[in-house]
Amino acid sequence: MEERIVAHYLVETPFSVEGAAKILAGEQSTGTFISVPGESADLIQQFGARVENIEHLGSSDNPCIPESNPSGRTYKQARISVSWSIENFGYNIPLMISTLQGNLYELKQFTGLKLDDFELPESYAAYFKGPSFGALGTKKLCGVADTKPIIGTIIKPSVGLTPETTAQMVDDLIHAGIDFIKDDELMGSTTNSPFAKRVTTIMNIINTFADKTGKKPMYAFNITGDFETMQKNYETVLKAGGSCAMISINSVGWAGVKSIAAIGELSIHGHRNGWGMINRHPMLGINFPAYAKYWRLAGVDQLHVNGIQNKFWESDASVVRSIHACSSPFLNHQRLLAVVSSGQWGGQAFETYKQTKTTNLLYMAGGGILAHPFGAAAGVRSIRAAWDAAVSGKTFEQTRASNKEFAASVEKFGSKS
Amino acid sequence: MEERIVAHYLVETPFSVEGAAKILAGEQSTGTFISVPGESADLIQQFGARVENIEHLGSSDNPCIPESNPSGRTYKQARISVSWSIENFGYNIPLMISTLQGNLYELKQFTGLKLDDFELPESYAAYFKGPSFGALGTKKLCGVADTKPIIGTIIKPSVGLTPETTAQMVDDLIHAGIDFIKDDELMGSTTNSPFAKRVTTIMNIINTFADKTGKKPMYAFNITGDFETMQKNYETVLKAGGSCAMISINSVGWAGVKSIAAIGELSIHGHRNGWGMINRHPMLGINFPAYAKYWRLAGVDQLHVNGIQNKFWESDASVVRSIHACSSPFLNHQRLLAVVSSGQWGGQAFETYKQTKTTNLLYMAGGGILAHPFGAAAGVRSIRAAWDAAVSGKTFEQTRASNKEFAASVEKFGSKS
Repeated sequence: MEERIVAHYLVETPFSVEGAAKILAGEQSTGTFISVPGESADLIQQFGARVENIEHLGSSDNPCIPESNPSGRTYKQARISVSWSIENFGYNIPLMISTLQGNLYELKQFTGLKLDDFELPESYAAYFKGPSFGALGTKKLCGVADTKPIIGTIIKPSVGLTPETTAQMVDDLIHAGIDFIKDDELMGSTTNSPFAKRVTTIMNIINTFADKTGKKPMYAFNITGDFETMQKNYETVLKAGGSCAMISINSVGWAGVKSIAAIGELSIHGHRNGWGMINRHPMLGINFPAYAKYWRLAGVDQLHVNGIQNKFWESDASVVRSIHACSSPFLNHQRLLAVVSSGQWGGQAFETYKQTKTTNLLYMAGGGILAHPFGAAAGVRSIRAAWDAAVSGKTFEQTRASNKEFAASVEKFGSKS
Repeated sequence: MEERIVAHYLVETPFSVEGAAKILAGEQSTGTFISVPGESADLIQQFGARVENIEHLGSSDNPCIPESNPSGRTYKQARISVSWSIENFGYNIPLMISTLQGNLYELKQFTGLKLDDFELPESYAAYFKGPSFGALGTKKLCGVADTKPIIGTIIKPSVGLTPETTAQMVDDLIHAGIDFIKDDELMGSTTNSPFAKRVTTIMNIINTFADKTGKKPMYAFNITGDFETMQKNYETVLKAGGSCAMISINSVGWAGVKSIAAIGELSIHGHRNGWGMINRHPMLGINFPAYAKYWRLAGVDQLHVNGIQNKFWESDASVVRSIHACSSPFLNHQRLLAVVSSGQWGGQAFETYKQTKTTNLLYMAGGGILAHPFGAAAGVRSIRAAWDAAVSGKTFEQTRASNKEFAASVEKFGSKS
């Protein structure tokens, strides 16, 4: 049986949706602007992309993306599905990206085009093992039970601290009970905090703590760089006894991330900075379900999803959809660990669990921990208590009434769940 | 003297431009949403980003990117410049990308944000040699004089042809006098045209032609894939006597492209498919001057710029700006070869040269060559004649009157220059 890849797009066009979809399918496979002699019926049958489905969504008098010559046209929005034979590009993901997300964004036929999701034949599982650790493996590395989220935080200020100051903060945080700490994505190797020095200084603290307590909190060192830098940094983390490497996946790109993740010794923390550039417009770029699949194929274990009631622009609905995407089955791959962050404290635990029903999360708080009125340890405990309560079916208000540390965090960070 | 990287953005904000710019600078360096203890004056002085300049551009009642809660605000547009000390990330380009183009796209303060250009200290030249061949080196490989553009074409149908059929087309095209031929970006390795087989079959034809004539047309084989696939494909091309490797740079990503380009034996044809996703919206993403610099740093030799009067959405002004960006000085790097394509024939030579004054171009035509009334050889000659005429100061109409093959192409492809 022929295997096909199916991509789902949100599109907007001033022309007929059917016609525009057909042009997309042609441009991204055997067709071109003028008919050429070699495009035979057999060739189209084997290698032509096919429009599989069209769902009309509505229309507007204004285009999503401005046109140079607006002309009082009506812009129709639709969800369309297009398929390609696996024979077009086999198991080559960058080629697949160029097919699913290449020149089609240039077509005048569209005033909006966003890749929403795609489906791959099961045979891809033989070529891509996916995350080496995933959500459950990463939890195990952190010493966190399956039924609980990992509680984490980020070193701030983002950039400028010395290794010694950073290590002191790490010491305080792990004694406060934190499971996970990460570099900021802006922090790689600075004049006053060279990467290798920072790794050994911090891992000394963590290894000592682990020897004493049996619990080894995870530190995500930002290894982002060119391929050689990432390889070297990865080795440095591994040798120092670290368990996690962070990569700014958009800045490095798919091929670089794939090669590093393939080493398979460290959990890969995928930071999606730059995401707004490719997602923020509602009808341009890519949505998270498709994006997350690319990075699962690359072997990323942890992927940022923003958070409920976040401080950025993204809606709660979009965040919830992203968490679902991380937890969804894909090939035979491990589930992704959804990294929840941005203005988080214990308060959002209730709504997050209610809407997602998962604890396969790395739940990160900065101020929610460090600025807790009773100190950082109480900050960590108040978030854990909120999550335990949420998972056991208690409400925000019940938890506020029964837990003093959570109540204090409500006082400080807001009164809404 | 302190070295700083300066980035220029086009922004839109419903708040004060000064305030929003300051938040951008803070978020992308030492600051965060709440003030944290370690953010000392010294640390800010050394690692804080600085707003260097603000140029107000105008305002609008509607935001460029839709807001979830529109509230009758006025949206101010501006060009702002922000600088970072080189101490923040040194010579690490992916980290620089995450700094210049990271979480800032998430900020609610902006309803539009586009990286327009950036400047690097000269010290970067010691760490990045840039294109190995660039425009002039690639011309030399093709046997094309400095004063002329390379005339090229693309194999169509994009995908589905066998190696034998492709090689036959190549044979016809090189006998017609073409300088350059490329795989379509959708074509990598298909069931009926495995990469290695295609390379050897095509290079047999080209090598035979070169032995006979002393001229070796360049074929850009699409090596796009994960790192191992690209390495293997690169070797295959090199061993077969090829001179060029094509990479879909957005799909592969910066780190992968950098590692492959660093081999330095083949001219790297940088295909920018997916470009519309990050550039098509006038106030979201990145503009070509910044984009081209990233890829020069990676070592790409040839970069797509679309073409004057193209069949896609992009304006002529944007294409002209892109060609200028390829020809502009940057560090001590070779100039990029601007790859002009999309609905090109001889007719656009006049306007292209008039507006750019450069022949550091790969000028690609499909139908403009294959569909010429007197055949492909006349198609190639008519484009060469148009370029020679344009460079020597002749007009479109003069050339039409004096050159029968050009006149025939005008009849067929349009009457406008």
